[in-house]
Amino acid sequence: MTTVATAWVSDLRDALGADGVLTDPDVTAAYARDQAMLADAGLPAAVVFPRSTAEVVAVMQVAARHGVPVVPRGAGSGLVGGANAIDGCITLVLTRMDAVLEVAPADRLAVVQPGVVNKSLRDAVAGAGLFYPPDPASYDWCTIGGNLAVNSGGLCCVKYGVTTDYVLGLEVVLADGRVLRTGRRTVKGVAGYDLTRLFVGSEGTLGVITEATLALRPAPRPALTLAATFATTAQTGQVVERVVTSGLIPSLMEVMDNTCIRAVDDLLKADLDRDAQALLVARSDAGGEAAVEEIALLTRICEEAGADFVHSTDDPAEGDLLLAARRMALPALERLGSVLLDDVAVPRSRIAAFIDGCDAVARECGLVIGVVGHAGDGNMHPTIVFDPTDPDQRVRAFAAFDDILELGLSLGGTIAGEHGVGTLKLDWLEREIGPVSLSVHRAIKDALDPAGLLNPGKIFRGAGSGDLAAVAGLAGD
Amino acid sequence: MTTVATAWVSDLRDALGADGVLTDPDVTAAYARDQAMLADAGLPAAVVFPRSTAEVVAVMQVAARHGVPVVPRGAGSGLVGGANAIDGCITLVLTRMDAVLEVAPADRLAVVQPGVVNKSLRDAVAGAGLFYPPDPASYDWCTIGGNLAVNSGGLCCVKYGVTTDYVLGLEVVLADGRVLRTGRRTVKGVAGYDLTRLFVGSEGTLGVITEATLALRPAPRPALTLAATFATTAQTGQVVERVVTSGLIPSLMEVMDNTCIRAVDDLLKADLDRDAQALLVARSDAGGEAAVEEIALLTRICEEAGADFVHSTDDPAEGDLLLAARRMALPALERLGSVLLDDVAVPRSRIAAFIDGCDAVARECGLVIGVVGHAGDGNMHPTIVFDPTDPDQRVRAFAAFDDILELGLSLGGTIAGEHGVGTLKLDWLEREIGPVSLSVHRAIKDALDPAGLLNPGKIFRGAGSGDLAAVAGLAGD
Repeated sequence: MTTVATAWVSDLRDALGADGVLTDPDVTAAYARDQAMLADAGLPAAVVFPRSTAEVVAVMQVAARHGVPVVPRGAGSGLVGGANAIDGCITLVLTRMDAVLEVAPADRLAVVQPGVVNKSLRDAVAGAGLFYPPDPASYDWCTIGGNLAVNSGGLCCVKYGVTTDYVLGLEVVLADGRVLRTGRRTVKGVAGYDLTRLFVGSEGTLGVITEATLALRPAPRPALTLAATFATTAQTGQVVERVVTSGLIPSLMEVMDNTCIRAVDDLLKADLDRDAQALLVARSDAGGEAAVEEIALLTRICEEAGADFVHSTDDPAEGDLLLAARRMALPALERLGSVLLDDVAVPRSRIAAFIDGCDAVARECGLVIGVVGHAGDGNMHPTIVFDPTDPDQRVRAFAAFDDILELGLSLGGTIAGEHGVGTLKLDWLEREIGPVSLSVHRAIKDALDPAGLLNPGKIFRGAGSGDLAAVAGLAGD
Repeated sequence: MTTVATAWVSDLRDALGADGVLTDPDVTAAYARDQAMLADAGLPAAVVFPRSTAEVVAVMQVAARHGVPVVPRGAGSGLVGGANAIDGCITLVLTRMDAVLEVAPADRLAVVQPGVVNKSLRDAVAGAGLFYPPDPASYDWCTIGGNLAVNSGGLCCVKYGVTTDYVLGLEVVLADGRVLRTGRRTVKGVAGYDLTRLFVGSEGTLGVITEATLALRPAPRPALTLAATFATTAQTGQVVERVVTSGLIPSLMEVMDNTCIRAVDDLLKADLDRDAQALLVARSDAGGEAAVEEIALLTRICEEAGADFVHSTDDPAEGDLLLAARRMALPALERLGSVLLDDVAVPRSRIAAFIDGCDAVARECGLVIGVVGHAGDGNMHPTIVFDPTDPDQRVRAFAAFDDILELGLSLGGTIAGEHGVGTLKLDWLEREIGPVSLSVHRAIKDALDPAGLLNPGKIFRGAGSGDLAAVAGLAGD
C-alpha cells in the first residue's frame, strides 16, 4: 500500500501544502476515532486539513482518481463511531474551515464554515440579539459540521427543534469533487427536492458539507426554572403526559432516574433526595407573566401527580444550580466505571414505561444503568456503567445496550434520537427501517457516490456488505 | 393505443372494481388539470380512485408492468400544473383515501390518509385542543396529500413554519409497487437518511404518499389583530425589517400593495385608504399580556416608520374583518380579468425592493399587477391581470411572469415559495438550482423511479429531455 499511497499523498500535498497533510501513524492515530470508545476504528493513511472549499474539492478529486475512501470529521465529539477511520483512508478534518462568514440580523441567518464550534456560533450571534438553538452536550467543542452530519439535538429540542430545523441551505462537495449548492437564504422555498435535509443527518456518506446557511431565532428571555422529585417513575410519566396534553411547551424539560440522582449526589454532595425515583428539571423562557403562568401550571401538574418536592426560581444562578444536577449526571456515572451511552427516542407517552424497562434491564444484566433524558421530547440516554477489562461485564454491557434498543423499538421508538448510527448501530438501523427502506438508502447512496468512497460502512452496509466490510476494515464489527 | 390500453385498463378494473376506474374521455377530462389554467395538460387514459394502500400498490404494479405513466393528484387545487395529466397516463386520484386514522393527544400527533381535506384535519384535532398549522388559501378544499406534494405554506408560516415541519413519517408506494415507511412517531429521530423530507415537496415524482404521521401543536390563544397603511412601500419594508431585528414573531404578517387595496375597496366598499401604497395586517396569538406587548411594539414600529394609520383590536370579529381585506385580494383581482398568480420568496430584508420591482414590471408591460404576500416570511404573490383572449396581452403577461421570477432571483430569492414548480416553472427551476443540482435531482429520480413513470416532466425534465417532452406531451411547453 505504501508506494501506491505515496502517489496520491503527493497529489494531496501538491493541493494542500505539506502542513495540510499528515501521514505519520503516531500522529494520524489521534484522528482515528471519535468518542465511541467501543466502536471499531482503522488507521488513516493520511489526515488532511483543507482551508477552503477548493481544497476540499482537490481532496475529493484525488480520492476519486485513486479510489481512496474519505472519512470526513470535525472535532471528533461523535458518540457512534461515525467519524472513525477506515484502514488506508483519507481522514478529512474540517476544523480549519472555522469562519463565521456572515451574520445577517435583518434576515435572521448566519453563514458558517463547518469547522465553527457550536459555542462560537452562539457567541458570534448573541451580540445581535440572536440565538442558534441546537445545543448538544458537547456544544463548547463540537463543530457545526458534525452537528449537521448527525442532525444534533440537545436540551433545546422540546421547544426549539433540532439542527435540521435551522438549515436553510448548504454547500456540499460531492464524491466526484463537484460543488453542489442546496436550499436558499429565504425562509420558505420549494424549488426542487429538499436536498438540504437529505444531506443533514447523512453522516458524511453523501457529500462533504463545506458551508451552511443557518436560520437564527431572537434571543430567548431569561428563564424561570423548576425542579421536582417523585417517588415513582409513573408519576414522572404522568407529568410529561399532562404537560403535552395541556398545551404547555417548556423551553427545557429533563429527567434523571434514581441511579443518576444518587451518583450526582455522591459527586456534588448536593443533598438531593436519594430515595426519589425521578428528578425533573424544567424551564420556561416565555418571559414576563407568560413564564410565571407556565411555571405555575407546571408546578400544579407536578403536585397533582404527587411530587414529593417542587421548587421554582426566577434567579438565573439558582436556576443554573438546579440544572447542574442534570448536567452532571454523565460525569457522575463516569466516576463509577466506563460508560456505554445509549440514545433512544420514544413517543412521549411511553417515557415512564421506558425508564421502568431500563430498570428491568439493569436488574437482569447486573450492571448499573442510569437514565437521563430529554423528557420533553422523549429522547432518553440510558447509560450503562461497566468495567471494560472484565470480559464478562463487557458481554453483559453489550447485551444490555441491545436490550435497551429492543425496548425502545417495542415502545414505538427509534434506535437513534440525536447521536446518529455510525458503525455502532448498523444492525439496529436495518432492523428499524426494514428491507425496503434499506434498499432506498442504498439506491440514494449509489446515485450520489457510485464508487462508495464517502465514509463507507457508516449508517448502513453497502449492498455487497461482505466486500464492503473487508474494504472498510469492519469485518470484525 | 386503444387496444393496448384495454389490456391494462382491465387489470386496473380487476384490482379496483369498475367504479374505481373511469375511462370515458368526457369524464376523465375533469381530472386532466389543476388550477394552473395556463399550464399544458394532456388527457388521461384512465382515472383511478383507490380506497387503500393495497389498491395504490395494485395500480403501480399495473403501471410498472405496462410502462404507463402515473400522475397522482388530490383535489386539484394546485397552481403550477403539477397534477396535470399526460396523454395516455393513469391519473391516480387519492380523494377516496380520506380517513383521519388516529389523533393521539398524549403524543401530539395525527395519522391521516392523503385524501383528507386540510380543514377536515384541523376540525378533527380541534376537539382535543390541538392545531395543525399549515393553512394554504385553499385549506377548505385542498388535501393533505397535495399539501405534502408541494410542501404547502399559508398565512401561518412566519411563526409556525410549513408542511414539512409537521411531518414525522410517511407511508409511500414506490414506482415498482413496494411500500416504504419513512420516519417515526417520535419527536426526534436520526436513524438513517431523512427520506420523509425527500418525499415532501417532490410533487409525486418519487412515490405516492398513502399515509402521513403529522405533528400537531397546542391550539393557539385568541389573536389580537393590527392593521396599518403606509404612503410608501419603503416604509412597509422598514417595518418588516424592524420586526425581524427586534425579535418579534407575529403569528401572521401580511401585506398588499396599492393595486390590491383599490381592487378590494372596489369589491368590498370597505372605505380603505385608496392612496395608501401598502396595507399591513399582523396578528399576535401569544396570549394575555404577551400578546398585548407584541401588538404594542408592532404599533410603535409602524408609527416610527411613518404609518398613516394604525389600528389594533382584541375583538375576534373585528380582527377577521381587518384580515378579510387581505383574504379578498385575489378574488378582487380576478374580477378585473384572468390572473397569473406568481409565488416568489425573497429574503425578508428585500421585500420593499421586490414590491417596487413588481411595480416597475407592471409599468413596463402595461398590465395590472397586484402584489399580496406573506410579509413575515418574505413569500410574495404578485398577480398579473390580463385578458387571455388578447394574444398580445397574453404574451405580455407571460413576459411579466418571467420578469418577476428574474427579479426574485436577482434579490437572492427563489422562484417557488410554496406553490411548487410543476410544469409551469421547469425552465426557471433549472435556472435557479444550476446544472450540478439538476444532475443530483435526476440521479435521485433515476434511483427511485428508473423507468420514469411517476409524474414525468414535473419539477424538472429527465436527462433525455427531448424524448421526455414528447412522451409527456410537453413538447410545446
